[in-house]
Amino acid sequence: MSDAPETAEHLQRVSVAAIDEILGVPLRVLDNGFVRVVDYMGSDAAIVQAARVSYGAGTKRVQDDTGLIRYLLRHRHTTPFEMCEIKFHVRVPMDTWRQWIRHRTANVNEYSTRYSIAIDAAQRTAPEAWRRQSPVNRQGSTGLIDPTLGSELTAKEASFQQASRSLYEERLALGVAREQARKDLPLSTYTEAYWKIDLHNLLHFLSLRMDDHSQSEIRQYAGVIGHQIVAKWCPIAWQAYLDYQIGGLHLSEVELGILQALLRNEPLVATQLARDAAWLSERGEAARRNRERDECDAKLLRLGITPPWHRP
Amino acid sequence: MSDAPETAEHLQRVSVAAIDEILGVPLRVLDNGFVRVVDYMGSDAAIVQAARVSYGAGTKRVQDDTGLIRYLLRHRHTTPFEMCEIKFHVRVPMDTWRQWIRHRTANVNEYSTRYSIAIDAAQRTAPEAWRRQSPVNRQGSTGLIDPTLGSELTAKEASFQQASRSLYEERLALGVAREQARKDLPLSTYTEAYWKIDLHNLLHFLSLRMDDHSQSEIRQYAGVIGHQIVAKWCPIAWQAYLDYQIGGLHLSEVELGILQALLRNEPLVATQLARDAAWLSERGEAARRNRERDECDAKLLRLGITPPWHRP
Amino acid sequence: MSDAPETAEHLQRVSVAAIDEILGVPLRVLDNGFVRVVDYMGSDAAIVQAARVSYGAGTKRVQDDTGLIRYLLRHRHTTPFEMCEIKFHVRVPMDTWRQWIRHRTANVNEYSTRYSIAIDAAQRTAPEAWRRQSPVNRQGSTGLIDPTLGSELTAKEASFQQASRSLYEERLALGVAREQARKDLPLSTYTEAYWKIDLHNLLHFLSLRMDDHSQSEIRQYAGVIGHQIVAKWCPIAWQAYLDYQIGGLHLSEVELGILQALLRNEPLVATQLARDAAWLSERGEAARRNRERDECDAKLLRLGITPPWHRP
Amino acid sequence: MSDAPETAEHLQRVSVAAIDEILGVPLRVLDNGFVRVVDYMGSDAAIVQAARVSYGAGTKRVQDDTGLIRYLLRHRHTTPFEMCEIKFHVRVPMDTWRQWIRHRTANVNEYSTRYSIAIDAAQRTAPEAWRRQSPVNRQGSTGLIDPTLGSELTAKEASFQQASRSLYEERLALGVAREQARKDLPLSTYTEAYWKIDLHNLLHFLSLRMDDHSQSEIRQYAGVIGHQIVAKWCPIAWQAYLDYQIGGLHLSEVELGILQALLRNEPLVATQLARDAAWLSERGEAARRNRERDECDAKLLRLGITPPWHRP
Repeated sequence: MSDAPETAEHLQRVSVAAIDEILGVPLRVLDNGFVRVVDYMGSDAAIVQAARVSYGAGTKRVQDDTGLIRYLLRHRHTTPFEMCEIKFHVRVPMDTWRQWIRHRTANVNEYSTRYSIAIDAAQRTAPEAWRRQSPVNRQGSTGLIDPTLGSELTAKEASFQQASRSLYEERLALGVAREQARKDLPLSTYTEAYWKIDLHNLLHFLSLRMDDHSQSEIRQYAGVIGHQIVAKWCPIAWQAYLDYQIGGLHLSEVELGILQALLRNEPLVATQLARDAAWLSERGEAARRNRERDECDAKLLRLGITPPWHRP
Repeated sequence: MSDAPETAEHLQRVSVAAIDEILGVPLRVLDNGFVRVVDYMGSDAAIVQAARVSYGAGTKRVQDDTGLIRYLLRHRHTTPFEMCEIKFHVRVPMDTWRQWIRHRTANVNEYSTRYSIAIDAAQRTAPEAWRRQSPVNRQGSTGLIDPTLGSELTAKEASFQQASRSLYEERLALGVAREQARKDLPLSTYTEAYWKIDLHNLLHFLSLRMDDHSQSEIRQYAGVIGHQIVAKWCPIAWQAYLDYQIGGLHLSEVELGILQALLRNEPLVATQLARDAAWLSERGEAARRNRERDECDAKLLRLGITPPWHRP
Repeated sequence: MSDAPETAEHLQRVSVAAIDEILGVPLRVLDNGFVRVVDYMGSDAAIVQAARVSYGAGTKRVQDDTGLIRYLLRHRHTTPFEMCEIKFHVRVPMDTWRQWIRHRTANVNEYSTRYSIAIDAAQRTAPEAWRRQSPVNRQGSTGLIDPTLGSELTAKEASFQQASRSLYEERLALGVAREQARKDLPLSTYTEAYWKIDLHNLLHFLSLRMDDHSQSEIRQYAGVIGHQIVAKWCPIAWQAYLDYQIGGLHLSEVELGILQALLRNEPLVATQLARDAAWLSERGEAARRNRERDECDAKLLRLGITPPWHRP
Repeated sequence: MSDAPETAEHLQRVSVAAIDEILGVPLRVLDNGFVRVVDYMGSDAAIVQAARVSYGAGTKRVQDDTGLIRYLLRHRHTTPFEMCEIKFHVRVPMDTWRQWIRHRTANVNEYSTRYSIAIDAAQRTAPEAWRRQSPVNRQGSTGLIDPTLGSELTAKEASFQQASRSLYEERLALGVAREQARKDLPLSTYTEAYWKIDLHNLLHFLSLRMDDHSQSEIRQYAGVIGHQIVAKWCPIAWQAYLDYQIGGLHLSEVELGILQALLRNEPLVATQLARDAAWLSERGEAARRNRERDECDAKLLRLGITPPWHRP
């Protein structure tokens, strides 16, 4: 093995200059939030180092580092990515934190409002930033509220947040325990945390939270972590991740069958597959709404193909 | 092995009559919360079954089930306890849920206020239930607020919670997306979740959340889960847990040394040990406040012993 | 909510007749191994139940159960799948178990050869089952050893395994501690374990271990668990899993770009993209071996497309 | 907060000189094994840093770092200890690795004998190091085998290990796939791995594996990790850990009741408690063997007290 004990020498810690430069510096998110890198372990080189222990001397000359990292990521050999670890200090509205904390494979120390007085800041929504409920996607938004109406919403929010803070401080002044006084703080109240996670799990977090289906607020944090931090920390792994997981396209078995039939120029076979999947009416029409069919349609369109059931 | 395939017979699922009786029935907690058992796997018998696979034929006749379970728990052979699993449906204020969710080794599905309108209930504090901030324990409460003052606090809370709900509903009526409209809901708002966990991790959760240092609200949930559910589900494991982990006493190395010295009737040695631990002033007095010494004092008092540094 | 406490009724445990039928029955794998279902919690219905708590009343009428499960799986809403749990009793060669145990999100009780005498069985390879080392895939096999030679290998293995067992038993007879006597047992020795895991993590295990790249022995166990057990336990989830994760096709960003160019009938653009990815020589030839390009080639061939760099 | 973004400055990474000195250097264990620190994140200071985020400004002046770390460890505030991470390169017999890998909360990359030829080294037991099976503790050893007999055992082991290596190499020479050729390697064969874990989980690993009940081989690795590495890396946390978890004494509820009764000079009450626990015969004699009673006896003896049931 390349680093068998006989030849093992004293090591220097791996460091990454681009991260050392921003260590401790708050990267702003939302009106009052931030993400700071506090510490890290490893880099692209550490992924390679761990993989070469797995694969032993055999890998030595076969592939260069970039090829190896791309291979690992493509084939879900995820353990070498766990060999990199990063620690953040974040400031986030509790509403966003409630989503964040659902990712269980991380280490967390959150600011305690039992122990200390709650942070005196709540996330405010600007007049032009109120989003409309999506009529089709029950858990999404689409478009914006008219800014005039938005101004009213923002003004009301400001006075409500002020009222809630007053109530909180009044309780404290009257001697109510902090752990109880806080119970009516709004979810928009900022909290802070140390959050430590390995690269594999961080990429998984980002793939869910940078996604369009994710809520705008947490997506902004994920974007900063991904594009401004991971991209600098492990640039080869990050590029591979963008290529394979973010920028790619996944076809299900039915979708693959339909695409193959269409490329063989057999639209009737394609339609039959769609009908078998209960996507179409008996007569082969895309009558009722069907999410799976809609998703297949969108993928075919990305390939420049109109599904036969939408052809005139 | 007792259940080698040659002799393996068709199994019946393990069931526990005392849990089957309460399956699905909400056990009330706080003003509007509950805990319901939705499903479970295993029982005391499953712990024994798993342990006997570990230990093979050797254990067969050596110990009865109770002795074996107690031995496992005492010696931290925790894996057999992971073979039991339980699933709850709970309704909890978000403030409490924020503490609950910190336990990572569980499976969770929480009610989504992106997808659906927030539950129209917030936890209300009764006039006689407002707690005073502890002057000594920064993260605790001690005693109660005067009920006359409490009435005022309760009335103000009611009108504040009503105002927050109105604000929320007004936003929804104006077309604001649910995911954004919710941002100023108070932490007292109830949420619901399915929560599934194995017995080992549940006991760990309970040891932290039934503890005096835990906040009253989550302690009430933990008490219901422990005394009304686990006690029925796995009574032998529960009793062993109460005996070893809840009802016991842990001495640190210094505390042990002091106790041994005192039992040998060598108070000067005991005092010296406390001085070495920086608990006492040079002259052997308990001058400054010191938490470790206070905790040692309390343990010695439970044994009926006055520490020499408090003797006149 | 559909099961708000007001209307909550006493529940019956979910059970699945097709699993109850095989509960405890050993399904044979390899020459001496098996998989037995010992207990389980939940079913397809439990996935739906948990998802409906997440999504609240909103989901009630929108989708039927099959549509909902397929949607959850397609969009990586994995938490409802964690609400199902299954417990196996398995008998596996230690060599295979070493791979199996790498999956960390499971509960395990293994037979202890410190506590008991090692199981007197080692996995034997039949004369026609010796596999040849693959010359291209360093970690794989391809084709079989000539059975005549195989007979020799099998005979030598049998006598070696006998010698190792004799050595083990001799040590025991001389009073050597079991924990030390076992140290030279071959990896082919069978072990047993209770293994408990939730459905989400089980599907992840299966996606890695049913894969072609996985070693034949563990693949046989995975096949039995998938096709003979999960297929009966949660048939809707299993079918969705086969459709989306097993039978599908994933394209990376580069592969997608190439496919799009080819479907637009722009082979030069496609070739340029491949050259940018360093898959081709300057002159556009697939000169050096390149794994990523090979994988792209294979995907295009599944779609009936010859890559331009392989066209005459 | 002490490091609010307004005042946040560019950070330097935390480093620990005593660890930097041994970074990469193999610390020898057994005849051919080692432990090397490859990288680390954090130190005692990082524990404090994370705790102060949890507790906010409140902690600033209250306690010094040592007092805070000791308080955290004593009261099971374990999350700040998770903020430290360490990565090892280890070389271990597979038999020992089978125990090691049971600790699931770690990141692992093991040397692959599918990919590369197995390491040509097996752990050899010296003539004077063969241990006798304990007659009372089924999973332990006690005392040593006579060295003359030990010499025979060692000689036989050497020739057996040689035979097994020959068989392995013969299979490889005949073209058998590495993944299959390895199946009869003895458990004593060395493997290597990168192993990364946070301090909280490492201390838990050590508390189980430095324990007397643990097998000698893994105990030697645990001892090196604890005393030669963690002691240098986080000396304050390590000392607190030794004081509270390793050097202490835990009494169960029954044991506590008995001790209290004896200190009140009420031996009859103590005997009655032991009888209630089914430790004694009806007549109050320690007739049958009972592990719980034996453990209580041992604890009382450490306190210099003879249990009444052993008094003449």
